[in-house]
Amino acid sequence: MLTYSFSDLGSDSLYEYLYKCMKNDILNGTLSPGERLPSKRSFAKHLNVSTITIENAYAQLLAEGYIYSIPKKGYYTADISTEGISAASIPSPAPIQKQQEELYFADFASNQTHPDTFPFSIWAKLMREVIGEDSFALMKNSPSGGIFPLRQEIANHLKSFRGMTVSPEQIIVGAGTEYLYGLLIQLLGFHKLYAVENPGYQKISAIYRSNQVKCCHVPMDQQGICMDQLRKFGADIVHISPSHHFPTGIITPISRRYELLGWASESDSRYIIEDDYDCEFRFMGRPIPSLQSIDVMEKVIYMNTFTKTLASTIRISYMVLPHHLMEQFQQNMGFYSCTVSNFEQYTLTRFLKNGHFERHMNRMRNFYHNQRDLLLDCLKNSPLSSRITITEEDAGLHFLMHLNTSVPDELMIQYAKSKGVRIASLSQYYESYPPTKQWDAELNRQQAFLGEHTFIMNYSSIHPEHMKAAIDKLCEAIQWAENLSSS
Amino acid sequence: MLTYSFSDLGSDSLYEYLYKCMKNDILNGTLSPGERLPSKRSFAKHLNVSTITIENAYAQLLAEGYIYSIPKKGYYTADISTEGISAASIPSPAPIQKQQEELYFADFASNQTHPDTFPFSIWAKLMREVIGEDSFALMKNSPSGGIFPLRQEIANHLKSFRGMTVSPEQIIVGAGTEYLYGLLIQLLGFHKLYAVENPGYQKISAIYRSNQVKCCHVPMDQQGICMDQLRKFGADIVHISPSHHFPTGIITPISRRYELLGWASESDSRYIIEDDYDCEFRFMGRPIPSLQSIDVMEKVIYMNTFTKTLASTIRISYMVLPHHLMEQFQQNMGFYSCTVSNFEQYTLTRFLKNGHFERHMNRMRNFYHNQRDLLLDCLKNSPLSSRITITEEDAGLHFLMHLNTSVPDELMIQYAKSKGVRIASLSQYYESYPPTKQWDAELNRQQAFLGEHTFIMNYSSIHPEHMKAAIDKLCEAIQWAENLSSS
Repeated sequence: MLTYSFSDLGSDSLYEYLYKCMKNDILNGTLSPGERLPSKRSFAKHLNVSTITIENAYAQLLAEGYIYSIPKKGYYTADISTEGISAASIPSPAPIQKQQEELYFADFASNQTHPDTFPFSIWAKLMREVIGEDSFALMKNSPSGGIFPLRQEIANHLKSFRGMTVSPEQIIVGAGTEYLYGLLIQLLGFHKLYAVENPGYQKISAIYRSNQVKCCHVPMDQQGICMDQLRKFGADIVHISPSHHFPTGIITPISRRYELLGWASESDSRYIIEDDYDCEFRFMGRPIPSLQSIDVMEKVIYMNTFTKTLASTIRISYMVLPHHLMEQFQQNMGFYSCTVSNFEQYTLTRFLKNGHFERHMNRMRNFYHNQRDLLLDCLKNSPLSSRITITEEDAGLHFLMHLNTSVPDELMIQYAKSKGVRIASLSQYYESYPPTKQWDAELNRQQAFLGEHTFIMNYSSIHPEHMKAAIDKLCEAIQWAENLSSS
Repeated sequence: MLTYSFSDLGSDSLYEYLYKCMKNDILNGTLSPGERLPSKRSFAKHLNVSTITIENAYAQLLAEGYIYSIPKKGYYTADISTEGISAASIPSPAPIQKQQEELYFADFASNQTHPDTFPFSIWAKLMREVIGEDSFALMKNSPSGGIFPLRQEIANHLKSFRGMTVSPEQIIVGAGTEYLYGLLIQLLGFHKLYAVENPGYQKISAIYRSNQVKCCHVPMDQQGICMDQLRKFGADIVHISPSHHFPTGIITPISRRYELLGWASESDSRYIIEDDYDCEFRFMGRPIPSLQSIDVMEKVIYMNTFTKTLASTIRISYMVLPHHLMEQFQQNMGFYSCTVSNFEQYTLTRFLKNGHFERHMNRMRNFYHNQRDLLLDCLKNSPLSSRITITEEDAGLHFLMHLNTSVPDELMIQYAKSKGVRIASLSQYYESYPPTKQWDAELNRQQAFLGEHTFIMNYSSIHPEHMKAAIDKLCEAIQWAENLSSS
């Protein structure tokens, strides 16, 4: 446990001395953000001081914002904002930047799951059950595509939640969609031309680039990916998220979906990768039917992940291959070991089988719905209210916020960062920004705010109790940025 | 729980009826091999019959070999050998064949860990601790290379066990070495020529093939990979296991190691991938020093895995990159998410930190040592004893057994399979067999038994209590194969 010696006490009282020591450790990083502090009683016992001393020290740290408390959980070290970052260090685009341990007071760009939302006690219980009851199976090598019971449960889930008729044999389980993309490149071929959405989730094109396959960035219109542009590029494989495009939220309507299927059916080498990454988080109405469910030509590869729904740190995703591709996979790539450990495969199987997943989804949908409403409310009551326009689709973990400002996106992001606020702009999700002249015209035909000064507001990782403070900090950061850039 | 209705009882007694139902379910696969059966008491309560009924049914199934018991654990469904496989179905080479649920009475080709050897209770305890104490950290996205505390513990382990001085920042943790090979191809380049050992672990070349990179198969001599052949091929990257070559067990001596480092230093594009997959299992003397530890030119990429040491179904491996390659990785590939879930990363961290790993290694080394001795003993006392020659290096989980026979390897494997015995031959690990004429001459200069009729005897997955029966079955299978092929 955390230990401090009171031998250098000097004229301080015990609690003052402890407060100073801890504050110092928080500032110099010895106590890292999010670290749980000892309970008052055990800490008092450990340091051989009275509980009152600890209480006073914690109260002081709490008041000054060095620590925070979670009811019934305890005290935690706060994220101290990284003040004083040099204005010269322009950050690279957020979505593909180097993953460093960067700390923010408010992070509107993170997809991290909040620890309070994860069903730890159920997960722990199921893990214990798995160890107690499945120990033999736990040590038996998993087939390449994952253990059969998990694929069966995934097929059942797709049936009941997405109305998809899929056999477990078509499913491949892997450690994250990024890994599965890599497998798909090997399966579909390195010499194909892959098309991604522009704007879009940049990691996808980064993965294609890293695998040295050709990748084109196809513009979007308000129905999804532009078909004439897709044809012009001559792509073989198109990688899309028709149920809820990231980051614009566009839902591809049925007409465009049939156009896509028609395009794919024109050549044997054409396929559609359907990334259904957040279909579970539709707040109103029924989930949008998947493209895979209307594909009768075996042209759609469906992908989804438990990383969004369970926790960003649990790496379990899956894909559904058309039968003939699954055969090809078994033939040429069936030698690969499954990348997900049996412990997690069996635990997730039970989580799905016993109905926990469905209940968890319902809870999370409510949670994110409330988060969204809370964030909208905070924005409405903030000084920004008259200068922002919100675009959102009753779905997912983020919406778009257009801000009436003259500060260029890159500067705004950089200034906000130096105030401890992380935001991402829509412009960062374009392959190059501003888009070409020709595309500008198309852009102008659309809602204007799909261009500059539009920010992606992700509300998944911000604690509800901190939402107000986070928005205050954002307003402050924007104000500061505008002052700085006009001066 | 398993449920049977006694409504169709007919003239059978309750226990007979239950025995027949269960036997039927085992034969048709409804009860899968290794599945744990309910305890007698709870099963009796569930089916509303007396415990005696269950006891009698279990006793009958046990006697006939349909189930087996593990003391203090319970009853499990047995692996029923797949009798009667058509002689026409010649199996593809074992190491890269399609991963099917194939069942054997005795499997000398599997690297599966035996469930009895895994420290379930410690692992479960650490998982509970992690969930209780690290819940905040569990939900925090891991850096691309893995969580820092785990990389720190791996660095400490390499220091104390392998005498390697490695900083945690050089380590990349990933879901299995197969996955890490894929990353390495992206890092080092798709247009390089990769060299692998011939014979060698076939998955490696399968991965290169699947990634459509050029791969050459370099012959081995008794010191490891042949340098003149390596130069003749013009390879850029060489992928070797100098501490304990698979499957021959060859240890590359220091002179050849310096030759390899010298070769690598001749060009900027050359690197050595050192796969140290089973360095922990040396029974006598000190571990062989790694090539990485004598590399002063930043030319060696070191790889190792917890999959061999902990359980084949736990997918955690790591690689140590030279500093300049790590920088390149961070720059170009740092966007990748780590493929190992935080739950397992934090659990393994504690497992290493608290000394459990070292103790487990010592236990496993003893276990495999005993397994090896037991297998050698069983072979010595078998009818095969006068016809076999053993090659082994006091290390690893397998040895080579040359059998004086006239049955071609492929037929022997196929016949053995149809008798429920899985064996792999050395010839299967050659890129093509028999090797070229030129290489034949080289082979003849070596011990003759590196050629045909040499089998790889892996003793990791066979329960000590079943070893004698497994060897009896092997003898029987070989006898049968020889009779069949001479008739």
